[in-house]
Amino acid sequence: MKTQYECIPCFVRQASEVLAMIIEDEKSRERPMRRLLVEIASSEWNGTPPAIAQQLHRMIREMTDNKDPYSSVKNEMNRIAAELMPRMREMIKDSDNPHEVAVRLAIAGNLLDSGAKTQISAEELPQHLNRILAQKLHGDAESLFQEAEHADNILYLADNAGEIYLDRLLIEMLPTQKITVAVRGKPVLNDATMEDAEQAGITEIARVIGNGSDAPGTILEDTSPEFKSCFEQADMVISKGQGNYETLSDCRKRICFLLTVKCPVLARNIGESLGSMVLKI
Amino acid sequence: MKTQYECIPCFVRQASEVLAMIIEDEKSRERPMRRLLVEIASSEWNGTPPAIAQQLHRMIREMTDNKDPYSSVKNEMNRIAAELMPRMREMIKDSDNPHEVAVRLAIAGNLLDSGAKTQISAEELPQHLNRILAQKLHGDAESLFQEAEHADNILYLADNAGEIYLDRLLIEMLPTQKITVAVRGKPVLNDATMEDAEQAGITEIARVIGNGSDAPGTILEDTSPEFKSCFEQADMVISKGQGNYETLSDCRKRICFLLTVKCPVLARNIGESLGSMVLKI
Repeated sequence: MKTQYECIPCFVRQASEVLAMIIEDEKSRERPMRRLLVEIASSEWNGTPPAIAQQLHRMIREMTDNKDPYSSVKNEMNRIAAELMPRMREMIKDSDNPHEVAVRLAIAGNLLDSGAKTQISAEELPQHLNRILAQKLHGDAESLFQEAEHADNILYLADNAGEIYLDRLLIEMLPTQKITVAVRGKPVLNDATMEDAEQAGITEIARVIGNGSDAPGTILEDTSPEFKSCFEQADMVISKGQGNYETLSDCRKRICFLLTVKCPVLARNIGESLGSMVLKI
Repeated sequence: MKTQYECIPCFVRQASEVLAMIIEDEKSRERPMRRLLVEIASSEWNGTPPAIAQQLHRMIREMTDNKDPYSSVKNEMNRIAAELMPRMREMIKDSDNPHEVAVRLAIAGNLLDSGAKTQISAEELPQHLNRILAQKLHGDAESLFQEAEHADNILYLADNAGEIYLDRLLIEMLPTQKITVAVRGKPVLNDATMEDAEQAGITEIARVIGNGSDAPGTILEDTSPEFKSCFEQADMVISKGQGNYETLSDCRKRICFLLTVKCPVLARNIGESLGSMVLKI
């Protein structure tokens, strides 16, 4: 999915929000903000949104000398998701359709996103859970399980911290011995890295690799040889979240996208309305 | 009121929206948008928000070779406000407190703003009218009428097209022979100019002058000698809207501000919550 004109003000909003989060003194935000505006003005707008975001977040980390600005946000997301695990396991257990509930939870976890405009904070997740079962799911959860049954190599592309706990619930119900879970190679935004996969216990149930990249998505040419090889060998790819969708939607490989539609540009691209829970193969 | 850090993404949003409104082809918006981002990055952030907006909108008019990008928006706002005049006159006539209703309508008219993020479209105005009487008015409408009674020279600073019809309802109830109404000297955003004042019939009931400036507010040093002299001589200034507030809130003159609080930065500055209807002397 290519960057659209509407993405530009959204990059600026996102950049200003990160700086506000990590630089307390308003005056001190000015210089980095001016540099980010110039960076956005001179960047390539023909690529995918995560390609631009990758550059911006690199600059932010360099300018603020902060290797992981979202560290505390991610910890908080992980903490709250961890607390909710028993309740979510109950939701799956008590359901007539545990497969669908697990898919719904994995998709809903995608709302824990610090980059998007339409998002929920970790604190809002508990009350949000109730709505998850009621909301329409666009796509057939069972088809994902059927494909997984027949696949030999499944690559599961994780998205955000916090959300990765909800991914675990879904992964546990899939044939884990066939699954490789990929997280970002380095911190970017609140995206899940190896540390988050370990915290969520994913490393205990499946093989986990970093993708070698600091893009908030999966820019194939930017990933490590190990990841590339995994991606090529996989006969099923499960892709979580908007950043992975934006970078892989034009890929020829058959990919099962699980995401919540968090912005109007993506809504138009995927053909579902804002806020929709989507499973798209 | 000085520009705050939070205003920066808002300028970008506003700039991108104007370009989208007047340039149909998305690709053709890129070049002017890049230039506006650089302009924002290099502009003086210590001034008031309308000072930056003035520069941006000048650039937009130049780059698009369009002297009045909001011309059709203003016409539509005027048309709908004109249609509602009989109903609004009834609202004032039927009320136990016509003064307050007129003040409320003038303040509510301020929601017709193409620049602000919190705004209503002209089409929404009719249904919005019902809420206007129910919502709390922060300030004493009667004090405005009392001050006007005792003043010798009243300067009424208009804000937007459309809104200027609702201003008319208030102006009619004030001692019009003592009033000078000032509009923007040149088109900027959807701000009211002489043309709008004429359409709204303000020129028939009071003296109207252009302020000589194309700022979406009242930057005194940028106004014409005629306006400056009016401003100095006025012993009562009624200032409509956020742009006039932002540029005059630090002025030593006693000013009666009538506005709807349309952004969080202004809300903090004026000490009222977002969406509040405010009369502040």
